[in-house]
Amino acid sequence: MSENWVDDGNVALFTDLYQLTMLQAYFHEGMADEAVFDLFVRRLGDRNYLLACGLDTILHYLETLRFSDEAVTYIESLNRFDAPFLEYLEEFRFTGSVFAMREGTPVFPDEPILEVVGPIGEAQFVETFLLNQITFQTNAATKASRVKQAAGERVVADFGMRRMQGADAAIRAARAFHIAGLDSTSNVLAGHFLGIPVTGTMAHSYIEAHDAELAAFRAFSSIYPETILVVDTYDTLQGVRKIVEMAKDSGEAFNVSGIRLDSGDLGQLARDSRRILDEAGLRDVMIFASGSLDEHEIATLIESGAPIDGFGVGTRMGTIADQPYLDSAYKLSSYAGQPRMKLSSAKLNLPGRKQVFRKVAGGEAAGDVIAVHGEEIEGKPLLEQVMDAGRRTAAGRRSLHEAREHARRSLDSLPLRFRGIQKAEPAYGVRLSKRLEHRLDETRWRLEVRR
Amino acid sequence: MSENWVDDGNVALFTDLYQLTMLQAYFHEGMADEAVFDLFVRRLGDRNYLLACGLDTILHYLETLRFSDEAVTYIESLNRFDAPFLEYLEEFRFTGSVFAMREGTPVFPDEPILEVVGPIGEAQFVETFLLNQITFQTNAATKASRVKQAAGERVVADFGMRRMQGADAAIRAARAFHIAGLDSTSNVLAGHFLGIPVTGTMAHSYIEAHDAELAAFRAFSSIYPETILVVDTYDTLQGVRKIVEMAKDSGEAFNVSGIRLDSGDLGQLARDSRRILDEAGLRDVMIFASGSLDEHEIATLIESGAPIDGFGVGTRMGTIADQPYLDSAYKLSSYAGQPRMKLSSAKLNLPGRKQVFRKVAGGEAAGDVIAVHGEEIEGKPLLEQVMDAGRRTAAGRRSLHEAREHARRSLDSLPLRFRGIQKAEPAYGVRLSKRLEHRLDETRWRLEVRR
Repeated sequence: MSENWVDDGNVALFTDLYQLTMLQAYFHEGMADEAVFDLFVRRLGDRNYLLACGLDTILHYLETLRFSDEAVTYIESLNRFDAPFLEYLEEFRFTGSVFAMREGTPVFPDEPILEVVGPIGEAQFVETFLLNQITFQTNAATKASRVKQAAGERVVADFGMRRMQGADAAIRAARAFHIAGLDSTSNVLAGHFLGIPVTGTMAHSYIEAHDAELAAFRAFSSIYPETILVVDTYDTLQGVRKIVEMAKDSGEAFNVSGIRLDSGDLGQLARDSRRILDEAGLRDVMIFASGSLDEHEIATLIESGAPIDGFGVGTRMGTIADQPYLDSAYKLSSYAGQPRMKLSSAKLNLPGRKQVFRKVAGGEAAGDVIAVHGEEIEGKPLLEQVMDAGRRTAAGRRSLHEAREHARRSLDSLPLRFRGIQKAEPAYGVRLSKRLEHRLDETRWRLEVRR
Repeated sequence: MSENWVDDGNVALFTDLYQLTMLQAYFHEGMADEAVFDLFVRRLGDRNYLLACGLDTILHYLETLRFSDEAVTYIESLNRFDAPFLEYLEEFRFTGSVFAMREGTPVFPDEPILEVVGPIGEAQFVETFLLNQITFQTNAATKASRVKQAAGERVVADFGMRRMQGADAAIRAARAFHIAGLDSTSNVLAGHFLGIPVTGTMAHSYIEAHDAELAAFRAFSSIYPETILVVDTYDTLQGVRKIVEMAKDSGEAFNVSGIRLDSGDLGQLARDSRRILDEAGLRDVMIFASGSLDEHEIATLIESGAPIDGFGVGTRMGTIADQPYLDSAYKLSSYAGQPRMKLSSAKLNLPGRKQVFRKVAGGEAAGDVIAVHGEEIEGKPLLEQVMDAGRRTAAGRRSLHEAREHARRSLDSLPLRFRGIQKAEPAYGVRLSKRLEHRLDETRWRLEVRR
């Protein structure tokens, strides 16, 4: 028996049932005109920006989307789909276009992270997977960029996989974190898939399995001379003194690169450890901290002057614990050439195809304008065509390295107040172009009259 | 190019790098004595219990764990593993035993959800995957059981996959939710994998793509006569009146089973909708609600008397937004026959192999005792052997149906105050047996002296 893993062969079934029922309805109604769907986020929560991420995953999905025989057989078993539709599913392909922000682009409320343009059935059907991946990956990249901002020049490693929400999250997050600027991950499979640096230290259990802490330090560093040793299994500062003892015994052969503090008052323990190490002439032994860290804890430690050289950040970043989801949406904005929108409640969306322009002044981003597609507005257009007739364009084949570089440059060009981890007031400016405002009013008026 | 999906063939690399470095250290040190690791949760947060979940996933993993040639080649490329170790990895199997609580068992702080017993290298190595899956699945099952408790007799459907943290989370959560008592999921792939009921309605975009709301209702219900129609695309109560209009036109042919409210003041809209439907003689048309729901929102709606027949619960349950992770741990409790523990900070663990006994009085759970393995204590022992020498026992092959039934019975036998969604004070009683207390003191004393 194989486990229930999502893969390229079955991901067509990774969808809400209503996507299939709507797809059959469109099929039987003969509705196949061009639709435009926007994927965007309504609110930032306590973030100053979001870092767009996940495009590569969804382009691969769109390129390879197929219903296997097994999938069609299962759908048939649900007793609400007829033979002509099941035959249509066997040939189903995504044939549309995608316009998207590059991975690593800072994005703001209501701005399309991507627009999907294609026959309505196809463009609707892919909603669930696109939202699932873009929401999580964008949320994860955003969180990690905040952690990295807080850490400044200090290294940050992703230690989060053990408590992330499932296996896919750990792989996607490691990639998102890399784009956001993290230095490494403990996630070996992510290292294998993506070629990103993997790092790690040792667990307390390794110390506990040995008869004494010093014996464990000696055994581990004889195999890994440049290792980082975890010192808080029994008593942290006594642990540090054992490192000093080992250094004295080993002389020139001593090559331990650092210690790791994983519990207690990390700031005070770091200061005390630094003093003990320095007094023993071990100025090159670095201090790493881990345990319940996030951007706020890191900022507090650094402000307090704690002599910490690097951070291992786990669960709180890995589950984006302070904001575990984004208020993302995938909304029909046009069908058969006519702008569309939802009217009820506060959940408005911007009708029709759009472009986002980012003004730059003095090398800094100076506000965005969401405009009607085809408008010429001052600034750099952010949506580019990444898929055409179901195939990636050159812009849809950017490497992970390019995404990381793009994120670094884009974040560097955000005014400093938006890069901080405190909520900036006023927020980064995003306005609608006059033409888009006019279209919004017009569409609302048309729908008020018609419906 | 295939996407980066975790699967049975590569899951051996789903691990923190330090598991591999420790494994090599144990290999070269010739340390292969029996170790015991406990997987437990330190704190409940604002829950009254946790619902154990994820055992089936991890037993499958332990049974099938292999390093493929590709995995070994990647590990070799990391330049810190030698040839004898890489050869050992090629033959690596999990050969140990597992003692675990049945899926669907309510569990409390410090109680082992499972114990892994085996050669230390093997038992340590599996930590990352075990924590990843048990933490998330237990957290998800717990959340869903609270939602279901709040909803009482009303049906609850899982609508969360679109904003869950990655693809694996959506599959694992759908299973956990089913164990916890949810009625259905919108997740088609989970339906396929697990044989659980799938349900769904329609999206606002379907309405918007048609020239008028009523035309969309008619088109959809002509294909799916017993459908649920979403009525809040433009103006909710006008949407309900269109259902009435359609019913009048259709006469006997009208079979729409319900309406869905997805925005606005759900309680007030439900009351107004019910009145409009009832006045038109449509008493059989049910009202479903969705949109930003969790156990607290549901309880508030029900207390207010809102005539809602069922709930679609999405993001907040799917990401367990109020508590997106558990404070879970996987700790060495014994090596080579000797109890082990960590001393520093507040992160104690209970040394040695254990058993948990649940006292029952008057048909109700009346407190647990965590005891030393082999002790005879009043009550029902909760840990059972589910794996022996790397193979599942009969107890390790329980069906999903059994887990759901076990959860239902177990939750029913919890005193009412612990089943509620408010934090119960005092908490459910968990104490250590005298022998376990003695062992804890003895181990602490031995380690204070020795280290």
